[in-house]
Amino acid sequence: MKDSVIGIDVGGTKVAAGLVDARGEIHARSRTPMFANDAARGLAAVRSAIAELQRCAGTFDAPQAIGICAPGPLNPISGMIINPPNLPGWHNFPLGEELRRIYPGAVVRIDNDANAAALAEAKWGAGRGYRNVFYATIGTGIGTGIVFDGKIYHGRTGSAAEGGHIGVDPNGPLCACGKRGCIEVLASGPAIARRARQKLQDNRKSILLESAGGNLQAVTSEMVTKAYAAGDAVAKAVLAETLDLLAYWLGNIVDLLEPDVIVIGGGVSTMLAPFLEEIRERWRGATLNPYPLQIPVVLAHYKEDAGIAGAAALCDTRGTTDGT
Amino acid sequence: MKDSVIGIDVGGTKVAAGLVDARGEIHARSRTPMFANDAARGLAAVRSAIAELQRCAGTFDAPQAIGICAPGPLNPISGMIINPPNLPGWHNFPLGEELRRIYPGAVVRIDNDANAAALAEAKWGAGRGYRNVFYATIGTGIGTGIVFDGKIYHGRTGSAAEGGHIGVDPNGPLCACGKRGCIEVLASGPAIARRARQKLQDNRKSILLESAGGNLQAVTSEMVTKAYAAGDAVAKAVLAETLDLLAYWLGNIVDLLEPDVIVIGGGVSTMLAPFLEEIRERWRGATLNPYPLQIPVVLAHYKEDAGIAGAAALCDTRGTTDGT
Repeated sequence: MKDSVIGIDVGGTKVAAGLVDARGEIHARSRTPMFANDAARGLAAVRSAIAELQRCAGTFDAPQAIGICAPGPLNPISGMIINPPNLPGWHNFPLGEELRRIYPGAVVRIDNDANAAALAEAKWGAGRGYRNVFYATIGTGIGTGIVFDGKIYHGRTGSAAEGGHIGVDPNGPLCACGKRGCIEVLASGPAIARRARQKLQDNRKSILLESAGGNLQAVTSEMVTKAYAAGDAVAKAVLAETLDLLAYWLGNIVDLLEPDVIVIGGGVSTMLAPFLEEIRERWRGATLNPYPLQIPVVLAHYKEDAGIAGAAALCDTRGTTDGT
Repeated sequence: MKDSVIGIDVGGTKVAAGLVDARGEIHARSRTPMFANDAARGLAAVRSAIAELQRCAGTFDAPQAIGICAPGPLNPISGMIINPPNLPGWHNFPLGEELRRIYPGAVVRIDNDANAAALAEAKWGAGRGYRNVFYATIGTGIGTGIVFDGKIYHGRTGSAAEGGHIGVDPNGPLCACGKRGCIEVLASGPAIARRARQKLQDNRKSILLESAGGNLQAVTSEMVTKAYAAGDAVAKAVLAETLDLLAYWLGNIVDLLEPDVIVIGGGVSTMLAPFLEEIRERWRGATLNPYPLQIPVVLAHYKEDAGIAGAAALCDTRGTTDGT
């Protein structure tokens, strides 16, 4: 596996690592707990994930290339972690510098999860062969990444591509980011569940309430999809609203970026899979692009492995000409 | 003037042309009426604007480079005009091809007005020296252009950068584009006047109504700014709403693109000039970018000449290395 690179996905509770080949396939994996409150122990967790991965792969050479993705905000140019809420021990932590010290000679690349996953999709996944790729991961939040001509679009300081925080309603609910009516607070998994709960307060005759054991607070977005499949009226109304909002938001993306493809990943994407065509049908009144139906909206190739593949994609320069 | 290029600004009623030097300065101008309903006469108007310009400049050599900007939709790659509402005679008109036939040997470049003006600002104007420029022209409509690394961002077919049609309210007023709550239908000149008229129906004690000679329908956005300066309450409320909406919209742009500078042009920009800092102050709750105040929001350098300069910028490759 001498041509493989190491991809590491750091989260608030775990570090997942994988050995990824030049076609984006993952050949070995490791997983260790993350110590999110302590800088040194957090770094040790990354080291031990790498050591464990090498043991599994039966290789003991010094790593040649290490890609890491982590929750933002972080600075992909300097490799500095800024202040991700779920990594308190790493606020203003120079992760790139530390790793280059521990693994001298290795190429080290760092980016946030959504940017990295977007690159993996563009390089090896559902966005392969398209010039400009817009990627969205819809789950407990909504993260996005933009890849132009095979490169992540970073903006001025690496804080671009926060498409989940595009506001579509200045009077909408308050998002954790401080803004009102971001698409994240309107159409992420928790937002879908919240809107279902609101509707259930007015209409308690729904199988949704049964599936939550009569407990309004236990309603989840997964239950909404299941109830929809069973023909439940509340679930249908919630899903229709969600699809309208996603269409309006993606219509904005099409009007501003006119990408060649839109790739949807994340936990909620599996639920949305049967409705991707419906989102495009709703574009009729949601974009002034002359050819919106020529832009495919497709499911991401990478599911749980999006972070590992994305991290590996960051330092994969095989097959590119400029090495950046 | 042998180093100058010809910039032509085609509108629904006139063709304006200028001879533009390598620093973006305009050295001669001409202007002829446009025949928007007739393809051949429209083309003849462009020819006569060029002939008149050459006569003014005292040059009779064949033009070396002709840049044209026109209202979209158009295809900047093929030079095909698609279906701009105010150029009915040129629907599906191969303008690029026709001009190359008339002026063999000349470089001919075509783009829509906002893209072209964005490039002129990035090259020679208020966006000069910045890597990524977001340009918005606010007038009877809102047009935008995006310049990355000195090049217009076109998207898949040249229909990207329609930032004026980013929707920020799915239940808002219907825009001419068919979408609801586009920033254009909320914050352009006519939208400002419309909101003032709505407020005046409830509160007729406003100097705004006096300045319109008591006729509600005669209220314009210019009158709103004048009444604001005189301390009028209705005008103050309308302006505050407009600034909130523009801040929310530009907050979206910052979250998605994190440009290095935002340049504001167009007729309404003169009115907004004293309030650009206020728009940035309102970013506090309108973007999650960690450094929003490091992104300047500045007035465009080119006013009435934005089209001529923009068109010239399209075919200006002096000082660039790749010639595209």
